[in-house]
Formats: sequence, structure tokens, C-alpha cells
Amino acid sequence: MMAIDQPQLFSGSTALSDFGDWVRKNSFSGVEVLVDEHTHHWCFPRFRQLAGLTVEPVVVPAGEGSKSVPVLAGLWQALLDRQADRQTLLINLGGGMITDLGGFVASTYKRGIPFAHVPTSLLGQVDAAIGHKTGIDVGEVKNSVGTFMPPHALVLDAGFLETLPSEELRSGMAEVLKHGLIRDATFWKELAGTDGIGIPDAAIVQRAARIKMEIVEIDPREKGLRKILNFGHSLGHAVESEAMMAGAPVRHGDAVAAGMLMESWLSRELGLLADKEWVEIRDVLSRMYPPLPLQHVDQDRMLTFLRNDKKNKGRSLRFVLLERIGKAVFDHIVEESMAIRAIQAYPSWFVPS
Amino acid sequence: MMAIDQPQLFSGSTALSDFGDWVRKNSFSGVEVLVDEHTHHWCFPRFRQLAGLTVEPVVVPAGEGSKSVPVLAGLWQALLDRQADRQTLLINLGGGMITDLGGFVASTYKRGIPFAHVPTSLLGQVDAAIGHKTGIDVGEVKNSVGTFMPPHALVLDAGFLETLPSEELRSGMAEVLKHGLIRDATFWKELAGTDGIGIPDAAIVQRAARIKMEIVEIDPREKGLRKILNFGHSLGHAVESEAMMAGAPVRHGDAVAAGMLMESWLSRELGLLADKEWVEIRDVLSRMYPPLPLQHVDQDRMLTFLRNDKKNKGRSLRFVLLERIGKAVFDHIVEESMAIRAIQAYPSWFVPS
Repeated sequence: MMAIDQPQLFSGSTALSDFGDWVRKNSFSGVEVLVDEHTHHWCFPRFRQLAGLTVEPVVVPAGEGSKSVPVLAGLWQALLDRQADRQTLLINLGGGMITDLGGFVASTYKRGIPFAHVPTSLLGQVDAAIGHKTGIDVGEVKNSVGTFMPPHALVLDAGFLETLPSEELRSGMAEVLKHGLIRDATFWKELAGTDGIGIPDAAIVQRAARIKMEIVEIDPREKGLRKILNFGHSLGHAVESEAMMAGAPVRHGDAVAAGMLMESWLSRELGLLADKEWVEIRDVLSRMYPPLPLQHVDQDRMLTFLRNDKKNKGRSLRFVLLERIGKAVFDHIVEESMAIRAIQAYPSWFVPS
Repeated sequence: MMAIDQPQLFSGSTALSDFGDWVRKNSFSGVEVLVDEHTHHWCFPRFRQLAGLTVEPVVVPAGEGSKSVPVLAGLWQALLDRQADRQTLLINLGGGMITDLGGFVASTYKRGIPFAHVPTSLLGQVDAAIGHKTGIDVGEVKNSVGTFMPPHALVLDAGFLETLPSEELRSGMAEVLKHGLIRDATFWKELAGTDGIGIPDAAIVQRAARIKMEIVEIDPREKGLRKILNFGHSLGHAVESEAMMAGAPVRHGDAVAAGMLMESWLSRELGLLADKEWVEIRDVLSRMYPPLPLQHVDQDRMLTFLRNDKKNKGRSLRFVLLERIGKAVFDHIVEESMAIRAIQAYPSWFVPS
């Protein structure tokens, strides 16, 4: 239905100053910056200095709770109060919450104003800020309301990653590894050769971001190919939700790593993936990620989460599986009993330390 | 930025039953109908019977007040409660408020679900439901938040017009006449030969609707040509706002008719429109529309309204004017003193009865 333009990409050591030049050159009628309390403290000073943009930011509370109707309505009103018009640029400086929320505000204020994403987390830089999805949570359902709308610009600055704790970096790295597994075997090989710890090279971040951008450009509305980005997320989301219900939440990326392990195993069990490649994936991911305590999961509750997955059609589970490293297939039917077996097998893939 | 599909159009005596067939044929996963209290009472029974769709409608209060954040949030929640998914069709049955509000809900719920407009007012059928603009009012600013999104279907049923009071029909007729003046001289001639009273023929409604659809298809985002749809609306909106402030509100179409008179006069005064055509427009509109009591308007306040018009750039007023009947030009600079003269001249165009 829509042809969606790709955003202008700024990356490398001069990303922020180049972006600042681009903003000045485009003669927007005004510029607003959206931050949360954390990125206001940790990221905004660097942003202001390197981009050279003098502006009083709009600050919202940190956390998923800000992806809500009251905060949304407050931001619409804030833009009106600041007399933002259709040529005002909104810059979203933060993690996935800020880019989801700010993207939705910008795509609806005055029926759409230009916006730029400056993701400050690794997960944001390689995943959340890419893909034209905006959204808020209504009725406790994640992203139940939103739009498809590309930002005018996307800024990948490696400096922001230096403020992140190592667990955050590891979590974001799961999506980087995923992009290799589903689309780029050479990239996966390079990643598999590293220890996967610490701040990734800027080149790795850019390559991971570009893989997602390329997939989104081919299939912006997730009618087909784009579904492969959900690799590791069917069982990963179920693990994440179950851990939340059990009162012991795990990081998104750690759950996705567990999901990728299980779904790679399923790919082997169902005859798609060669045993040798399964062993390689298992060895790399079980080395980089800690085993999650899944011994006591409630299998019925896990099945309920799996059945509610948006990727299903009708009553059967549909997973993204691997045909080989670098090549994923989507809409693959998986029996519920097989999914449960994958969860049960998971602890055996880790070497007791 | 976007290629926007045109909606499927249903018109003529079988419009509603044809639409019902189309809904059934498309196998949506569900169907929801949005109405206000008035269209629930006056229009929904006819809709349900002729379209043959059995569904419990979602009802919101009548009036512009429903284009608000609380009603919007309530509708998002209602769709969640009814387990609407991405293949659920939302049918908006009502006047401009319902199609603006329902269009915005549908274009954001689950990042966009299919929707259909079934406008029940003449203004809705020839104007408000056409043009892919959706919106609500935030901060007391009309349509300050919204999207550009076309409905999948547009249903023009003449039967709904039979429930309208004559003042409503006259008001809607102003936009019909406008479409002739700006784009179709033959159509204008036909309209000028009628008394402009009562329910217009279905052929007239369809022709007026098609003129707007054609303009919107050429310029969906109002970068150029689409601006001509604002003919009569610069001074018309100022008259409407001033009447509201003075505590004596006038109908939108009556204000637009006054605006078209003044802007046609300006077109003649500024050397664009032939005197003969000005006289023809004056005679037709002053016969069909009552003179509005503009003797006591606050000129400073009128100027403030004119200066706030979204069509202006910088400090000069920009109007849509007529070059001839059937041909409008946009972005024409008009001096403030000339605009005031048009308001002052207005009463002289009516023959005292």
C-alpha cells in the first residue's frame, strides 16, 4: 500500500556532527528533542555538544510505562505549547521506548512531522530504531497502537554505547547475532570468532543495522520476508513472559539467545539444519550467554504464550527456523509437543562450569 | 512520500447491499461499526438492513467533543476488548466527526487496520469522508493530531440524506457548489440552474465526490493542487470563528458560501475573474444562501483568524482565488486591507427581501 522512503543514515565517528549539519542545512522551522530521564542525564550533553544543537529537551520518565496514552497526550500538548508546526523536526534520543513513543508522536502530530532517531542503546541501534514501527502500549498490550512511518534520519553513534552496563551490551548483542544467523553467514562467522563481550566495533553495529534496513526495505509491512526478524522470538518471548510472571524477569536479549538456541535445535530436529551447524550455534551461544533457569517453568503457561504469538495463523504454531546459517524460513509449522521438547532440552546444551 | 490507494467506491441505489457483499467476500476476521448517538438512532437500522451485517455497534456521544483523547483511548480499548486483530474491518457510519475519529482509530490500532467510511451527511458524502485525512482535536486545536490514510471503501447512500434537516442539506450543498466553481464549469452551470434546495440527486452527490477524489489522487498531501479545495474557506473559516466568538454560531456551509462570495469578489477586484462571471456567482449564491449578519464583526479579530490560517506562509495572506468559473489558483497573495474590504462589501450583494 505504501512506498516507504529509507532514512538518511549517519554513522562513524562524525555521525553526530554530520547530523547536526544536516539539521541546519534542511532549515526546519523548529527542532525538538525527546529524551527520558536517563538519556537526559547520560546522553543529552554529548548529543548537544557534538550535534551543536541548542534546544531545551522534552523529558519523560524512563521505562516502558511511558509508552502510554497519558504520556502520549502530554507530548502532543507539549508540541502544541511549543508551537511546533508541520516543518518542525522531532529528534528521539534514547532507547527503544523513546524511539517507539517519539516516532508515534511525530507520525500523528499535525498528521505527521519529520523525525529523526538517535538510538542510544545497542538494542536500539541494531533493532528497535530500525524498521519504521512506532507504538505505545494500550490495555497492557505491547505496541497495540502505532504506525508504520520511517524517520527522516537515523544516527548511529558509538560513543553512547560506552555508557551502557555490560549486561545491556550482551542483551543487544543477541539481535546482532540473530542478523548473522538469518541473513549473513560471513557476518556470523566473524561474530562467532569474538568473545561477544564488551562494546562491539562500530563496523559490527553498522553491519547489523544495515541487515535489518535491507530486510525492511524489501518487506516494510511484514507480509513475508520481514518475518525472519522474529527468529528466536517465538520461544524467546514465551521465556521472557514466563520469567516475568514467575517474578524473575530476564533481559530481552538473554531470552532471545535462549529462543535462538531452542529454535536452532528445532531446525535440526525437523530436518532443516545440518547437525554440524546446530553444534556450532549451540557452542557459540552457550559460551556467550548464561543458562536461564528454565527447569521450573509452567509448561501450560508457556504454551499459552506461544499460542498468543502474533505470527500464528489459526491453531498451529508458526516459527521462523534456519535452513542453514545465514538463511531462515518463516511460517514453519511446529507441533506444540516439539516446542515443549525444545524447552526441556535447553539445559543440556550448557557445559556445567 | 507515500503512494495512496484510492478506496473502493459504492454508490447508487444498491450501494449498501453491494458494500455488504464486498465485506462478506473479503473475509475479514471481524467487523466493527462505529456510530454516534444520532447515527445509531437514525442511520444504523437502515445500514444493518441493507448491508445485511449483524453487529453490535460501538457508540460514542454525538458532537465535535468526541474527537478527543479520552474517546480515542476508549475506542482503542474497545477494539482490544472485542479482540479486533489486523484483519478486522472498522466501518465508520456517521458525519465528519465519526469518519475523522474512526479513521484515526483504524489507522493506528495494531499499526493500521482496514476501514470503510459510510458518510451519512451531505457534507460527509461530498467532502469530509473523502481525502484520506483523519484526526482528533488536541489542545482545542481542530485536527491537531491525525494521519493521512485512505479508507478501503467509501459508501455513498442517498437514503441517509432523507433524515437530514433542510439547513444541513443547504450547508453541505456549499461544498458541492465549491467543487463546480474550482474544477468543473459544466457542473456549476447545472447546479446554478437548480433552486439548490432539498435533497440533491444522487448523480450530483457522486459527481461532487468524484471531483474531490480526483484532486486528492493527484495531490494527496496538499503540496499544491489540493489547496484549491480551500476556496471560500479562508474568509469562510474567519466568519465561522468570529460568529462562534460572538455567541451566534453559523453553519459551516453557510460560512463557506459567504467566504466564496467574498473570495469571488476579490478574484474580480484583483483582475483575475471576469466581471460577468462574478455577477453570475453573486446572483446564484445570494439566492441560495441567507445573508449572514456581518455588520458588527470585530475586524481586528477577523484579521487574527485570517493570519492564523494554515495556508499562509510568513506574514502575507494567501488565498485560493478564481481565474474563471471552473478554474482556481492557489497561494495568491491578498492584502489584509483588501480582505477587510470584501467583508465590508458583502451585505451589498444581497437584494433586500
